[in-house]
Amino acid sequence: MDFTPSERTQMLAERLGRFMREEIAPAEAVYAAQLTGSADHRDWRQPVVMEQLKAKARAEGLWNLFLPDLEGGPGLSNLEYAPLAELMGHSFIAPEVFNCSAPDTGNMEVLHRYGSPAQRERWLQPLLDGGIRSGFAMTEPDVASSDATNMQATARIEGDEVVLDGRKWWTTGLGHPHCRFVIFMGLSDAHAEPHRRHSMVICPLDAPGVHIERMLPVFHDYDEPSGHGELSFSHVRLPVENIILGPGRGFEIAQGRLGPGRVHHCMRALGAAERALSLLCQRAQSRTAFGKPLFKLGGNADIVANLRMAIEQARLLTLKTAWMLDTQGPKAALSLISQIKVVVPAVAQQAADAAIQIHGGAGLTDDVPLAQLYAYARVLRLADGPDEVHRAVVAKLEAKAQLAREQHA
Amino acid sequence: MDFTPSERTQMLAERLGRFMREEIAPAEAVYAAQLTGSADHRDWRQPVVMEQLKAKARAEGLWNLFLPDLEGGPGLSNLEYAPLAELMGHSFIAPEVFNCSAPDTGNMEVLHRYGSPAQRERWLQPLLDGGIRSGFAMTEPDVASSDATNMQATARIEGDEVVLDGRKWWTTGLGHPHCRFVIFMGLSDAHAEPHRRHSMVICPLDAPGVHIERMLPVFHDYDEPSGHGELSFSHVRLPVENIILGPGRGFEIAQGRLGPGRVHHCMRALGAAERALSLLCQRAQSRTAFGKPLFKLGGNADIVANLRMAIEQARLLTLKTAWMLDTQGPKAALSLISQIKVVVPAVAQQAADAAIQIHGGAGLTDDVPLAQLYAYARVLRLADGPDEVHRAVVAKLEAKAQLAREQHA
Amino acid sequence: MDFTPSERTQMLAERLGRFMREEIAPAEAVYAAQLTGSADHRDWRQPVVMEQLKAKARAEGLWNLFLPDLEGGPGLSNLEYAPLAELMGHSFIAPEVFNCSAPDTGNMEVLHRYGSPAQRERWLQPLLDGGIRSGFAMTEPDVASSDATNMQATARIEGDEVVLDGRKWWTTGLGHPHCRFVIFMGLSDAHAEPHRRHSMVICPLDAPGVHIERMLPVFHDYDEPSGHGELSFSHVRLPVENIILGPGRGFEIAQGRLGPGRVHHCMRALGAAERALSLLCQRAQSRTAFGKPLFKLGGNADIVANLRMAIEQARLLTLKTAWMLDTQGPKAALSLISQIKVVVPAVAQQAADAAIQIHGGAGLTDDVPLAQLYAYARVLRLADGPDEVHRAVVAKLEAKAQLAREQHA
Amino acid sequence: MDFTPSERTQMLAERLGRFMREEIAPAEAVYAAQLTGSADHRDWRQPVVMEQLKAKARAEGLWNLFLPDLEGGPGLSNLEYAPLAELMGHSFIAPEVFNCSAPDTGNMEVLHRYGSPAQRERWLQPLLDGGIRSGFAMTEPDVASSDATNMQATARIEGDEVVLDGRKWWTTGLGHPHCRFVIFMGLSDAHAEPHRRHSMVICPLDAPGVHIERMLPVFHDYDEPSGHGELSFSHVRLPVENIILGPGRGFEIAQGRLGPGRVHHCMRALGAAERALSLLCQRAQSRTAFGKPLFKLGGNADIVANLRMAIEQARLLTLKTAWMLDTQGPKAALSLISQIKVVVPAVAQQAADAAIQIHGGAGLTDDVPLAQLYAYARVLRLADGPDEVHRAVVAKLEAKAQLAREQHA
Repeated sequence: MDFTPSERTQMLAERLGRFMREEIAPAEAVYAAQLTGSADHRDWRQPVVMEQLKAKARAEGLWNLFLPDLEGGPGLSNLEYAPLAELMGHSFIAPEVFNCSAPDTGNMEVLHRYGSPAQRERWLQPLLDGGIRSGFAMTEPDVASSDATNMQATARIEGDEVVLDGRKWWTTGLGHPHCRFVIFMGLSDAHAEPHRRHSMVICPLDAPGVHIERMLPVFHDYDEPSGHGELSFSHVRLPVENIILGPGRGFEIAQGRLGPGRVHHCMRALGAAERALSLLCQRAQSRTAFGKPLFKLGGNADIVANLRMAIEQARLLTLKTAWMLDTQGPKAALSLISQIKVVVPAVAQQAADAAIQIHGGAGLTDDVPLAQLYAYARVLRLADGPDEVHRAVVAKLEAKAQLAREQHA
Repeated sequence: MDFTPSERTQMLAERLGRFMREEIAPAEAVYAAQLTGSADHRDWRQPVVMEQLKAKARAEGLWNLFLPDLEGGPGLSNLEYAPLAELMGHSFIAPEVFNCSAPDTGNMEVLHRYGSPAQRERWLQPLLDGGIRSGFAMTEPDVASSDATNMQATARIEGDEVVLDGRKWWTTGLGHPHCRFVIFMGLSDAHAEPHRRHSMVICPLDAPGVHIERMLPVFHDYDEPSGHGELSFSHVRLPVENIILGPGRGFEIAQGRLGPGRVHHCMRALGAAERALSLLCQRAQSRTAFGKPLFKLGGNADIVANLRMAIEQARLLTLKTAWMLDTQGPKAALSLISQIKVVVPAVAQQAADAAIQIHGGAGLTDDVPLAQLYAYARVLRLADGPDEVHRAVVAKLEAKAQLAREQHA
Repeated sequence: MDFTPSERTQMLAERLGRFMREEIAPAEAVYAAQLTGSADHRDWRQPVVMEQLKAKARAEGLWNLFLPDLEGGPGLSNLEYAPLAELMGHSFIAPEVFNCSAPDTGNMEVLHRYGSPAQRERWLQPLLDGGIRSGFAMTEPDVASSDATNMQATARIEGDEVVLDGRKWWTTGLGHPHCRFVIFMGLSDAHAEPHRRHSMVICPLDAPGVHIERMLPVFHDYDEPSGHGELSFSHVRLPVENIILGPGRGFEIAQGRLGPGRVHHCMRALGAAERALSLLCQRAQSRTAFGKPLFKLGGNADIVANLRMAIEQARLLTLKTAWMLDTQGPKAALSLISQIKVVVPAVAQQAADAAIQIHGGAGLTDDVPLAQLYAYARVLRLADGPDEVHRAVVAKLEAKAQLAREQHA
Repeated sequence: MDFTPSERTQMLAERLGRFMREEIAPAEAVYAAQLTGSADHRDWRQPVVMEQLKAKARAEGLWNLFLPDLEGGPGLSNLEYAPLAELMGHSFIAPEVFNCSAPDTGNMEVLHRYGSPAQRERWLQPLLDGGIRSGFAMTEPDVASSDATNMQATARIEGDEVVLDGRKWWTTGLGHPHCRFVIFMGLSDAHAEPHRRHSMVICPLDAPGVHIERMLPVFHDYDEPSGHGELSFSHVRLPVENIILGPGRGFEIAQGRLGPGRVHHCMRALGAAERALSLLCQRAQSRTAFGKPLFKLGGNADIVANLRMAIEQARLLTLKTAWMLDTQGPKAALSLISQIKVVVPAVAQQAADAAIQIHGGAGLTDDVPLAQLYAYARVLRLADGPDEVHRAVVAKLEAKAQLAREQHA
């Protein structure tokens, strides 16, 4: 269990850190100014500065760092990628700059690992190039997403076509002007065994019958120009070749997709937590009341200490998870993935809340990115499975492990 | 310490409850549809339905219920008003319907209690009639608001004029199309003893030198058409008659104003907490996963129980505070007011967070009022003094009381 | 809901407070010195000072205050008794001094309310006189006590005899030299409907077949000379007249018994919490480190504030419960009783833990009563139903209430 | 940062684990039976089984594993020792079996690192052989131990003698029949700079003027036959050769001593937490209520998950601390040492409390080691500096690091 950053990671971290400070930090305000401020995603445009930053990042080789085993990227392990993803988590615009943003990274992994050559050429390559973006359509508005077998949308196979029907939401990135397709998950055989019933299908956004119903605000924020969307599928007919890996293999792919995706989320959330703690400390040291810096008042120092301890622990757990994924595979990492999915967003939410409090009213506004950090962390407590489901996974595996230990003792 | 609702309260609570169910609940969507959705307060209009509701409420005598001792209202005590304010807290649009919304209630109390006959005629009467609205300009962007003596804005007296300079923010209601004046608090004599240095001045919004700089989003929400604003005062010259109670009496008035104002906030926040718990229970009982209603899964029932216990206790503490204010005055209620200011918003925030979690993604959107309830509770942990300041007040008074007890024993 | 102490309560509280300060406080050390320090209950003796205090208390009319409707006591309501019980909770030896200690108070209520004239003469009168003490044998070592229907001990009826078999534990007071009988609860008819299967039987400790197996330490403390015991019943034959109220009425009596008993526990636990907070404040104000009293260091003042708020709320909830029991009976008070059973011991445990921490090592020893207060609070989180069961009751009743409200709306 | 156990550690862990299961687990009851049960330490005897276990452990080479760089032990690094110390933490009797118990390990390190050849021959060798035990006398009853400069005991140098005066308490192991000396820390030069004022002196327990005043119970437990003691020093005259490293070097030694000592405590506390979680799971899976194992009821599974996550994180933080100590020394590890000193005991306390709760009444008794585990964890929140002091250290270092980062950015 060696968490020492590899030479490659150290070198990349240094370059990425510099890029973050020198290119991205000053560009944040520019990016914000280039947004339209509209709640209607049809008005949204990709900010020019983003494409400029992408070009620079790609030119510097800071591109597709997330991909473990591809010619297009440096081929970093999860453990190697972790500190880089955390760095990106310090700025909301950073992941896209480096072509490392969700949900595209997960979709690229799926296509890279499970896609047919035709699928890879048509959909993966432009994603790797940063020319298009994509969505993932799994969660449904009408059923509890915590129980995936609840899923009601259908992907019926009729001859050499697959027909999609149903309604999905929380498709992240759906509003992006560059979004070209979603990976849709639906029921294709209600009579197969439970985990062989669903298929994943590549569905272009311009296919007849696909309709973006609306974009979803999170704490009133539409997260322009990406957003989270709700969309409907009405008799959307696609060639069966659009099915990934073949009918009934949806859950198999989902398992492979969600592991690293969750770990990436947690890595970025650690960066968010660190950013919140930095802002908190800056404010606590520079603002005075009753003749002292806030840091010296009441329990404020304890809050700093508690956050440092919580973040430090959450990071180590995340590194262990990445290491476990790398060395023993997703099944061995099952409990750890669920553990960080509970632990890290909670820490980030706590850090953001504490930083808001110490900023007073300013913390709630857009003058500092804390409300945004807060919302990001809050979403993560629901996205890719709510806390409750992950806690249940951890508990079940623990109970099993304890039983095994007892029998062995 | 008799918390039994009086006959008047019972009668009013029944009528108010009916009005909430029959008039306000169905009007919430209408109201939302009549908003402009703009982030620019100059576009904001008072929704027509609000004026219709106000007229109905006034006609039914459900008007100015907050005023303890005025001819215009029923003259309820704080304890009598508490259950009514809590009921109003169930809907964001309700307080204005009954002319009981912040910060107008506080301003009306100030003018009623401390205003000159001329001030009352010119500013109080239209407020009581619901014809205009008002703001309160105390907090400043450049200094920690937790320490009121930090205040830097000035209200210098020059002959028969008072000249206002400085910058204020978090002036709630500033964006409202009906907002006509703010009560400004500023330094008028830097050499007086600390609590005699500041004055409160009635400042019309159209006075030369007053400028609304911007409206402040809270978790990206501008709270149209009221909002919270930042405004600047540049050599704003007003007649000294606009000073309330006289120069240097600002803190004296503030003490009187903030007590009941904080209690009203807490009463409404209890209603918000109850609304969140109701929504949580409805979702938990109607939504199923893994073959059971969510209510029966994992720790969800514990969450319901914990919230019920927390709300119940917070309400009793609030009632005790109201009773103490009524029977023994603001000084005796000092610790209790600070106690509820810490306890109640925290409970409401916790209830909203839990309800969001059980709603899944829907909880974060505008499909349910939970994000709004959350933001409301979160603001209250800062408004009228952050938690930290109130905890310090409670601790200090407790330490004093314990010392007195020791010496007596 | 009037929590104002009645005149009787005020008068009694004043006298009781004086008695606590003048008689009991100085006697605590004497009492401790008169204990044997043995872990074997057969060595235990009633400290002489206790009988002296009892005689004084009785002479002053501070006797049997808990009894709501008996000639022997002042006939206080639960609400009237609450502040008195809280006062008693400040000292571990106080409840017995005033003949108000568990489990005797519960047993006296049972016999008073449900006992036959013969049972009352033989067992109730000496309890009321403080001449004997008693136990309550319900919990069993081999089954989860949280589910009362698990109970396995039997009370079979054979002709005019009832035969007791089984094993019980956590019979409080069993080790007391004055303990003469226990009320035993066992299965008498396995085929009746679930809540008509069990009977309560008065079982003298000297009946053949009754055996005290051992006394149970709580955090290594045997609580001499009362203690908690484990005892076995082997074919213990008693006349059927020893059954209270008749066969199969055990649960009916238990419901009546446990309500007030739990409320009394909570009242005393509030006293324990206040004592812990007092000790905490004394230490925090008198001990210095880094040149300041501990009270002024770090988050210590916040701890004081948080405890004051928690205790204040817990007390109001307890008063409401007492008032509900008095005015609307045990069924209406069901949720509230469970609420305080969760809330109050947790607050007392938290107060004791915080006070221990601020005392440093001394807090863990017998130099201060904090370890004892801690253990008392910790036991209460299990006694008369663990937190978990009470939370489940609160949640279930809340869910029901919410459903009813929805249907009404 | 490589946490992979070394080959030596793996091999030792396997042997140690087997020894724990095969030798120590069955001996726990024997050991308990060989205790006298007396509260008077003069009655205490070393249980025969302990000496038998020590002989076996030593013969198997499981001896002095804690010593990083001594011929007598395998010379493990802190990181290598960590998993072994955690294993020992599963049983209260294990550390002494392997000659790895506090405070002897700390004292051996001090003498090994700073002792003169004569001191090492006379006091270190018998400790390494397990022939004697020792104490550490630093904390004082009359001053807040959180601020070490408060220390009032004196070690005055008079010619070639050093004279000890004062009172110390919480000297762990003082009651052990084999305890032969304590390391005493006292003021030797009040006029030196603050951290050069104190000296550490080896003081034999049979020196004239040394008096064991009493043993201190922790939650009523005297922890026979080791215990924690209070002792007085009255004009105790010793040769100056008994001063370690020379006059005024006490704090220098303390810094070196406390780092590894705190880490060892935390490692063992992790074992204690794991033991509590194991017991919790066994009970939750084997006990039923309402027709289900407790594990499946309410929030119990969440409790298991939360503990697993907390322990896992606390362990990783402890490993990082050990690694930092090994690779970058005590100064670089300062914050981490304080972090684990806050985090680990809290987790262990939480695990023990949760396990007690799920055991019901049994959890409070000696039938399971939970009350003992609880007390152990609770003591650790005070020993070697209370939580508050360590949080302050973490906060201070964090604030400094953040400032440095800001200036660099």
